[in-house]
Order: sequence, then C-alpha cells, then structure tokens
Amino acid sequence: MKVSVSSLGGAGEIGMNMYIYETERYALIVDCGVKFTKSEDPGLDLIIPDFSYIETIKEKEKLLVITHAHEDHIGAVGFLLRVYPEIMIASNRYSYDLLSKKLKEQNIGPNKVYYDDFTSFEWGDFEITPYPISHSIHGAYGIKIKVENNMSFLHISDYKIDLSPVTACPFPLKEFIEMGREGIDCLLADSTNILNKGFTKGEKQVVENIDKIFKNHKGRIFFTTFASNIERLQTVIDIAEKYGRKIVLEGSSIVKNVETARKYGKLKLHDENIISRKQMEKYDEDKLIFIATGSQGEGSSVITKISEDDYSNIKVRKNDLFIFSSRIIPGNEYRIIQIINNIYAKGGIVITSDETTIHVSGHASKEDGRLLLNIIRPTYLVPIHGEVKHLKGHMEMGIEQGMKEENVIFFMAGEKLVFENKKLIEKEEITAGKMYVDLNMNEIMDNEGVKLRKRLAINGIVMVVNTAEKNNKIEKENIIVETEGFTLQAEYKNELIEQLLSYNEREETATEEFKEFAEVIIKRFFKKRFMKKPVIKIINTGK
Amino acid sequence: MKVSVSSLGGAGEIGMNMYIYETERYALIVDCGVKFTKSEDPGLDLIIPDFSYIETIKEKEKLLVITHAHEDHIGAVGFLLRVYPEIMIASNRYSYDLLSKKLKEQNIGPNKVYYDDFTSFEWGDFEITPYPISHSIHGAYGIKIKVENNMSFLHISDYKIDLSPVTACPFPLKEFIEMGREGIDCLLADSTNILNKGFTKGEKQVVENIDKIFKNHKGRIFFTTFASNIERLQTVIDIAEKYGRKIVLEGSSIVKNVETARKYGKLKLHDENIISRKQMEKYDEDKLIFIATGSQGEGSSVITKISEDDYSNIKVRKNDLFIFSSRIIPGNEYRIIQIINNIYAKGGIVITSDETTIHVSGHASKEDGRLLLNIIRPTYLVPIHGEVKHLKGHMEMGIEQGMKEENVIFFMAGEKLVFENKKLIEKEEITAGKMYVDLNMNEIMDNEGVKLRKRLAINGIVMVVNTAEKNNKIEKENIIVETEGFTLQAEYKNELIEQLLSYNEREETATEEFKEFAEVIIKRFFKKRFMKKPVIKIINTGK
Repeated sequence: MKVSVSSLGGAGEIGMNMYIYETERYALIVDCGVKFTKSEDPGLDLIIPDFSYIETIKEKEKLLVITHAHEDHIGAVGFLLRVYPEIMIASNRYSYDLLSKKLKEQNIGPNKVYYDDFTSFEWGDFEITPYPISHSIHGAYGIKIKVENNMSFLHISDYKIDLSPVTACPFPLKEFIEMGREGIDCLLADSTNILNKGFTKGEKQVVENIDKIFKNHKGRIFFTTFASNIERLQTVIDIAEKYGRKIVLEGSSIVKNVETARKYGKLKLHDENIISRKQMEKYDEDKLIFIATGSQGEGSSVITKISEDDYSNIKVRKNDLFIFSSRIIPGNEYRIIQIINNIYAKGGIVITSDETTIHVSGHASKEDGRLLLNIIRPTYLVPIHGEVKHLKGHMEMGIEQGMKEENVIFFMAGEKLVFENKKLIEKEEITAGKMYVDLNMNEIMDNEGVKLRKRLAINGIVMVVNTAEKNNKIEKENIIVETEGFTLQAEYKNELIEQLLSYNEREETATEEFKEFAEVIIKRFFKKRFMKKPVIKIINTGK
Repeated sequence: MKVSVSSLGGAGEIGMNMYIYETERYALIVDCGVKFTKSEDPGLDLIIPDFSYIETIKEKEKLLVITHAHEDHIGAVGFLLRVYPEIMIASNRYSYDLLSKKLKEQNIGPNKVYYDDFTSFEWGDFEITPYPISHSIHGAYGIKIKVENNMSFLHISDYKIDLSPVTACPFPLKEFIEMGREGIDCLLADSTNILNKGFTKGEKQVVENIDKIFKNHKGRIFFTTFASNIERLQTVIDIAEKYGRKIVLEGSSIVKNVETARKYGKLKLHDENIISRKQMEKYDEDKLIFIATGSQGEGSSVITKISEDDYSNIKVRKNDLFIFSSRIIPGNEYRIIQIINNIYAKGGIVITSDETTIHVSGHASKEDGRLLLNIIRPTYLVPIHGEVKHLKGHMEMGIEQGMKEENVIFFMAGEKLVFENKKLIEKEEITAGKMYVDLNMNEIMDNEGVKLRKRLAINGIVMVVNTAEKNNKIEKENIIVETEGFTLQAEYKNELIEQLLSYNEREETATEEFKEFAEVIIKRFFKKRFMKKPVIKIINTGK
C-alpha cells in the first residue's frame, strides 16, 4: 500500500502549517494554520492555505488533528470547515477550548474527538498517538502516526526540549526513547530555530532576569508577550505577586487565554491580586503591573494604543517601564520602533529581548534537534516548518549525524512524498498557494487580487466616462476623465482626451469597442508619459 | 546676539538629517537628507523634510554645508534647490562629486565652494571648520561652527572613532583634543548606536572574517554591501585579488561609486582583475566574484534579480555563496528573507552579519561617544540622529559623565534651541514634517496624500455615475455603481442604488447636491454593512 505526506503550507516558510497524510481511502490532515499579513498587504487580515488540493481527494475520509493552538496551526480551521463541514477534529481539550472560541465566532460547530497524552486511537488506516511536548503554549503535541501494516511517522512541528518549564510538563524524554526503540520510519520535525547553536533555553532561565527588573524598578510596569504563552504569564504573575504588585489584565486575547488556562489548572494566580483598570489609582505606582496585548505592535493592541495616548485614561508617565517579552516577527520591526519612540518621548523606558534575556523561544535549536534525532533514529528525516535556509540547515545536521544523504528529504509546500514498502518512491507536485482574507468584506482573494489592490495604491486609478449615445460620434464633451491617487495636470488630461477622440477616425465605432480601444490608449499614455500603470475603469453611459 | 539651532529632520528618527544654525541675518543649513520609504508607502520613492520653515526665514542668507554624501544627508538637496536655487553649497570635493551626479539628473547646477580638511572659512557670522572623521563613507566631516564673538558648536553627525581603517584616514584624535582645549560650547552628536556597549569595531576587524570565508569557499561568490562603503569594497577587492578571483561589478550605484573613489585615489584595484559579465564563463567558479547592489533587498537590485532568475544569464547554482556584508535597515527584513529563501531553494548558500562579523557599523557606540565627550567637554550636549530611545540613552550617558542635567538637551525635529550669551534660553516649536516623493509622477505629497493612496488599496473605491439630466428625477437606470479593489455582490449593489434613489424624495433636488447626498449615503452604507471606508467618486454626466 502506498502512503503519502503532502504540505499545503509551513514547509519553506514560517507559519501557515498544514500537512496531509494519505492512504488510498483516508486523509489525515495535521494542522490548518494561518500566516499573518504584513502592513503592505492592504486591508487583508490573514493568509490561509489554498485548499484546492483537498478537492482532488474529496472522496477520501478526512480527519483533522491539531498539534497545538497557535494561530499558525489552527487559524485557518474555520475557513477549511466552511468548505468541508464534514471534517472531524481530533484535539486535546485545552487546544480545542481555544479553537472552539474562534469557531463559535464564525458559527461553526464541528464534530470532534478529544485525545489524551500517550493514548493511541485508531482512525481508518491510521493509529495515532499524541505525545505531549514542550513549546511556548500548553497542550502541544508531537503526533505519532502509524499506518496499518505499514510505516510509522513522527510529526513534531514546534517543540523544544525544555526540562525546566514553569507550569508545563517537562519534555517526556523517557517516552520518546521508548518510541525510538519501537522504531519510527520517517521523522517530520520543526526547523525554525535549527540554525541556533546549543539548546534552546528553558523558561526558568528568563525568571531570574525578569525578577531582577522587577526588583530594581520603582514605577509602574507594563508587560507584554504572546497572549497564548501561559508559561511566560505564570512567570510574570509569580514575580508580580512576590513583589506585591497588583495586576491589571488588558486586551481580549490576554483575558481569554488567562481564563482558559486557569480553567484547566495551567495558570495559578490569586484573585485578590487582580484589579480592574478603574481601581489602579488607589495603588502606588510601584505596586502595579499591566499585562497587556501588543508584543508585535499590532495596531489595535493595548500597548500600541497606550503609546499613542489612545487607551482610556492610561497615559505614559515618567518612570513607566514597558517590557516586551517576545521576539519580533520579521516585518513588525518598524512599527515597534514607532511605539518605542512614543514611549520614550513621553518619559517611559522600554526593555526588549535585545537588551537582556527576557524571552526564550519555543522552538528547537540545533542541539534539541540533534537529541531528538538520536533518540528517534528514523530512516527518513523530513525537515518542516522553516524558511528554506532552515530546512537546508536541518538536512545538513541530519547528514552530520550520520544519516544517508538520500534519506534526508528537501520538502516544500506544494509537494507530496509518496512511500511504498517504507521506501520513498516519488516526489510529486500538488496545487498549493496562499489565499488572502479580508474579514470585513468576507472576501478571500488570490495573489492577483492583492496585486490589484496594491496597484490601486501605487499607481492610482483613471476613470473615463463616455456619455456619447450608442454608435454616435464621440464629442469632446462626452468624455469625462477623473483620477484618484495622483493628480493629472489639465494639459495632460486634454492630451489624453484628444487621443481618446481619435476613436472617431476608426472605420467601425461600436460603443462596446470603445472600452477596449480606450484601455489601450490610456495604458500607453501613462506608460509613455509617467512610467505608470494605473488601474483603468471605463464606463459607457450611452444607450 | 541670539544664535539658534533647529532640526527639520534626523532628531528622533534615523534618516532625513537636516539642521539649521541661525543668527539674525544668516542661516547655515547642515545637510539635507532623505529617509527611505517602506514597502507599505505606495508608489513613493523618498521621504524628504517639509521645507516650510525655510519660507519663514527666506530673507536670511543661506549656505548648505554637507557633512558627507550618504543619502540621509544629501538625498533631498535637489528638492531644496528646486525651491531655493540661490542656496550655495559647501562640501568637500569627493562628496560634491557624488552629489553633483544626482543633481545633474535633475538639471540642477548650484553654486558651490569646496572645503578642505581642518581649513577654516568664514561665511556671514560664522567661521566654519571641517574636521575629517571616520565613518562608513569617505569624505565624512564633523563641522565646527564658531559664531562671531559668540559661542561655538561642534556638529558631528555620523562618526565612529576608527583607528584602523582600510583606506580612509584614522580618526584625528590629536586635532579633536586641540579643538576641545580651545573650547566648544555645544556638541551635537550622532546617537544611532549609542546604546551599544564598547567601541564600534574598526574596518580591519571584518577583514579577517571575510578572508576566512574566501579561503574556504570553492564556488562563485556574490558579495553585496552599501555601494558607498568604499572601505568595505577595498576590503573585499583586496581579498579577491589575494585569492586570484576575477571581479565582476554589477549595478549602477556600485559602478558609479567605484569610479568616483578610484578617481580620488580612495580605492585601489588592478584593471586586469575586473572582467565583464560576458567574460565570466572563461573562468573557473572559484576564480570569480560578483560585487553587486542589493544589500537591502531592493526590488530593482542585482542580487534580488539574480535570486529571482531575472538577471541576464546569471542563474543561482549549487555552491554559489552570497555574502550580505551589511546590516538590515528595519522594515527590509521580510524581503531579504524572501531573497534568502530563493537562493537556498536553488542550491546556493547565504552568509549575513547574523552569523559572523562581516559588517561593522559606521556609527559611534557608547565608548566612542564617551571618548568624544571627554575630549570636547562641551557645556551643552544635544544628541542628534537617532530614534528617541537613542537620544535618551545619549543624554543619560552625558549625565553619567558628569554633565549637569539641565545642560543635556532633549531635542527633536520640529524644535529650535535658542542661545544667548552662550546660554540656552528657549526651546521653540517650528514647522517640520515629512513629504513623500513619487518620482514617476514628479509629485510631492503630504501624509494625507499617502493616506488616500493607502485607503485606495485597503478599502477600494466606489464609483457612482449619475446620468440623469440636470434637475430631473433620477431613475434607477441613471445610476451606475462600479467598484475596484473589492467585489460588491449584486444584492448589495441594488440595496445601495435604492438608497441613492431616495434622493428623489427630497424637496430640493439640484444635481450639484446629489454629490454631497450620495457621499453621505455611500459612506454610511459601507460603514454599516462592512466596517469599510472606500474612497468615493461621484460623477454627474447630466447637462
């Protein structure tokens, strides 16, 4: 029997993870994440995988397994379920709780099964075993996928080997050693940080540095991190309580995550230490901490709004300290610089992880990766989740560790690896790509749509209204030219109208043909005059 | 007599440096630079200072002194001279040669005087002395500005204390010590890197690392850095010649800078080692190096185009090594990641300054700054050129060094410091801001114009044509609604048209008023339905 694994996202890029394991009748989807848009993607909120490939396997039974509840692993589930509502979800309880809150907003209530640590379950041709692992969110799993009478995979996207977490469980080395002993044929593993030397630091290593900052600071503290990073929240809450600072929680995703984590016993804090924004004036400045959204400088986040004097009555004061306990996702640097400028200009101070270790990554460094590889000793290594550079670095590491070069596989989104008798026999291309979501308009567009939007901004738009009656001669006063996004001087406007009127010299002058004709003229005019390609809109009003 | 210094850019941000020293009758402008636009600034090429303030001092005689020929110090000179062609330029020969090439493209040929190292010249109330300094471009100066019978300033934007440059002169410590002994009242100095510990490394310190890379690499090498960094080009050319690699120079700014530097004896290389792109196939892969533009991943640069298989016959091959010998300017990270992905996917390798020290900055670190302050011992310290955080850090350093807190001045673009009898007596606000240049359309716009362009992309445009004859009732078939940038479903389009037809129910229905009426309706419709603010264009064609 043939078994294959395909990627619709996440291999060759960071974000938008989606993988599909297939037998003849079954398709096991692992994760369905988004990638965040950049400020240059106009009016677009999310990037989701192009699901077209799934249409080609629509007869197969489908199950979606969630490894953990980060947006780049679950953010596109709602969009997938809109098209394929029959897909069942397998998840642990904690991740499903976070996911279902998002699905509810979209009025989606899928079928689900819960899975538990180390507890195998069968589905179709697959036996699935979730192994809890350490990462920067609770409820993160590596998934062992055993195909009936056939090969076994370990799919471990996003992990690090943390033996000193704060509230999560340490990485279960013993169970992984056993799994390795039983044998894994193919390992698909996280490559994000594989080029970093040594082991990724454990959460305990940031505690000391954050404690030191709290100990020395006399004014208010504003703390921001990824809202889903309950480990980090536990760290800062413990320290806040130690130094007797009352805690204000601000921003809906912080509030939501804290709520869920407490419900599942994953975050401990004393109710009496939580106060509301309104109560803060009752406390001294050095008895207060805000934990708020905004670690990536998101426009609508609490920290951004505070820095812009636009958040309720909270103004930046002298001696306010802002702690960004996070890494900056590439593309967000510039807006974070603006926030930091604003804070300093108002007398505040900012500490980021550039200055001191107040953030540790959730992803495996080279030695984590090496350790995992030594424990699992798979026949095949397929690096996933990372830019191309990371995948290649991960491959090199595998070869360094003694793997055969032909068993270390370069694998990108849009590819399918086909195995037979536990051997890789083929690498096929499949349809994959990015779709862009405009949440306001509820519109999903491809790259061409995004390009048109950018062209509107960069090149502007030329609108030509032709009011001549159908098949009549077009007079000068029939043509109205308007532009947006740039100014067209009157002399140029007249020149363009003159050129448009040359339509009358043609032999045939059907009104429908004016559109085509005018488009060519306008395109040529702007290219020649201004090296510019405006969007062109021609409207005939004649009857 | 009162003396003042103002900033139109460069204080509180990195880039767009422009300062004005004034007495009653004279205005000495120091630098006139640009800031680069980000990929989210649509169709805009440059950001230049808002020059309105100069209009308020137009009766004063004006001189523009250039400290060095980096774009953030000279890039806006052409735009200034378009408005004030009478302004004379004082510059050293090398910088003027680079500047004049740019001005010629704009058909501008200003009056100029050349200045020489350590040679004072008088102009109006000022005595000006240029001190050569070390930076990442040749011909960089600190400017001593002595006001007649009054105070003296040292304006030193962009420097480091490099005692081991490769082709430039070492920082002239002796002359600075003398200047300090003679006395400087107010020091305005570079803050960009002031938060970095220690001294900024000298150019010699990158030689060893680049040499090691060349020694070990077997295939072709592609090298990119800032084209103006002749020090770095000398470093890589020396090493290329040492290892017998023939040099291909690609990209007009590389070619231009090499030409100018050779003309002034600032760059040494042997003609026989330069070959053209066409000759390369005659040489072994490990006997070739490309020095090319693209260190910031600029869309039109050589390295970007090579990575996209779009540069002549040069394709990325296995064993090609790309060296990015530069820092990434914030905002450019994402596009550089894309280039690196492309190179790796095609079998190439990339080394950036993240992995090993193959770049050193041209800006003073904390110890450079401290050394300068100790040598100069000014009464006032005014940190310039840096984000707010850097200015504040620089101020703190001054206080640490024993300066009085009130003599360490927080100074931002849009402010004027007024001195009398060598004392700071006032800080005034002046008009300052950013203007955005669209080179193709030869259009300069303010922030509102940029916002409109972004709005076109983010929210799209709604065009409504009303063909009803003037003051007639508007029928359904008179209204044409079109959109660009998003799709409006037919049902919504009809709903909108219905709402527009309610215009007929008004008592007065003058056609001119339809525009206003329709704008309100359309705005409300899109806000309510889609939380969207499209650009609205209404055209009445009726007579």
